[in-house]
Amino acid sequence: MDNRPIGVFDSGLGGLTAMRKLVEAMPNEDLIYLGDTGRVPYGGRSRDTIIKYARQDIEFLLSHNIKAIAVACGTVSTVALEQVAKEYDTPIFGVVEPAAWKAARLTKSGRIGIIGTVNSVASGAYDRAIQGFRPGSETFSKACPLFVPLVENGRIHRGDKVIEPVVEEYLSGLRDKNIDTLILGCTHYPLLSEVIGDFMGPDVNLVSPGAETAEYLIKKLKQADALADSDRQGSHRYYVTDSAEIFRRQASLFMDSDISGEVSETELL
Amino acid sequence: MDNRPIGVFDSGLGGLTAMRKLVEAMPNEDLIYLGDTGRVPYGGRSRDTIIKYARQDIEFLLSHNIKAIAVACGTVSTVALEQVAKEYDTPIFGVVEPAAWKAARLTKSGRIGIIGTVNSVASGAYDRAIQGFRPGSETFSKACPLFVPLVENGRIHRGDKVIEPVVEEYLSGLRDKNIDTLILGCTHYPLLSEVIGDFMGPDVNLVSPGAETAEYLIKKLKQADALADSDRQGSHRYYVTDSAEIFRRQASLFMDSDISGEVSETELL
Repeated sequence: MDNRPIGVFDSGLGGLTAMRKLVEAMPNEDLIYLGDTGRVPYGGRSRDTIIKYARQDIEFLLSHNIKAIAVACGTVSTVALEQVAKEYDTPIFGVVEPAAWKAARLTKSGRIGIIGTVNSVASGAYDRAIQGFRPGSETFSKACPLFVPLVENGRIHRGDKVIEPVVEEYLSGLRDKNIDTLILGCTHYPLLSEVIGDFMGPDVNLVSPGAETAEYLIKKLKQADALADSDRQGSHRYYVTDSAEIFRRQASLFMDSDISGEVSETELL
Repeated sequence: MDNRPIGVFDSGLGGLTAMRKLVEAMPNEDLIYLGDTGRVPYGGRSRDTIIKYARQDIEFLLSHNIKAIAVACGTVSTVALEQVAKEYDTPIFGVVEPAAWKAARLTKSGRIGIIGTVNSVASGAYDRAIQGFRPGSETFSKACPLFVPLVENGRIHRGDKVIEPVVEEYLSGLRDKNIDTLILGCTHYPLLSEVIGDFMGPDVNLVSPGAETAEYLIKKLKQADALADSDRQGSHRYYVTDSAEIFRRQASLFMDSDISGEVSETELL
């Protein structure tokens, strides 16, 4: 039993999709979310900068005496985590392994698509993880740099005159490869599930790494007997590097409801 | 005569449109450009955060013994400058006054459109400045939050299947107002001049604040007899907060040619 909080971080709001999953599944846990909203997005930045920011995010959470960290950011998970995670004693879980494992389990044809930011796709992290779980799979990846700004501008609905042609442009190549499973490798993309699902067709499984990572973390904590007391009520705290008010207002897009818990502004050093 | 350098800053690469103008028009001047590429874009952040970042940008340039600063960032100019500029002795020129003055001079009907980031438009800074230069003008503004990511992804060409419907969506309302002058109130937007010009028609003047600010600064330095020696060759230095190599590669989009001068990475505190 371990009543210390769990830390979750993302470059911005996208990680709230994982946070929501943890809130629902783990009512006894204290959860601390960090969104680096003053520097979002990480997706197009250099590897060195992403590693620097990741260390600052992790060290902020470690200063809150946490027992584990879920990295809800696809870019950090794919670009920085392999190098950074081993620098700390606290267990740090990225989105790559849980999503790759899920995709490897779901696929029948062994043909798996991966979409993400430019850096995530270039890292090849998902491809390597999938090969580890299901040797001989064929992976096909495509960077979708306009998806994040489009989601952040609410362009997520069927029939939207901008998202529809962008989805077609980015995903036609993957559809032509006859993949049967597609990893939505950035925390913003699950908000496009409807439009992407329409385009790819009902036979393609969509995998949301944030949700998979939340489930994976729960399983790992259970195995390590490190869950919080089952008769306690967990608390939720949020930290952001830009305005708390703006965060609170925009969070409902990712949480499906208003967030419960205090939102504080902080600096990362 | 004053041989100290001129400082120019922007949240990222957009200010290179102003830098290019200065490079061409002022061959004798030393120019120092700061692009906060590790935290770009500023456009959607809170007023407090924009003010904090603007102070850090200004203080970095001041540490290089400069004689004047051109703020090439539309968001900083409209949101932060009124408050921040008066905190420093060095003259700081934003894009608002030069662009508003130009628009007030160009318009015949007195009907002027303004496009910019969400914060720039909400600030009302252009509207107020135009009223000052040409009382009785009517101004109409529209935030265009997707223009920056679209430009950064190179979606600037006629016939592009994404930029065309976005331009139509954002600018139809302004076209219906029969404006005869449009301020492209963000340093990225001049790269869309062709597509915007096609949509608005040949009778609408397009004003590029970065270029106007460069011209304004030159005029002011002349008036103050603060130009550099006319027989010297000016140097150009660039500082960025993300990768120098990525900056150098992307700069050609805004400079029409490779940048001449050293690019260094720095931290802002």
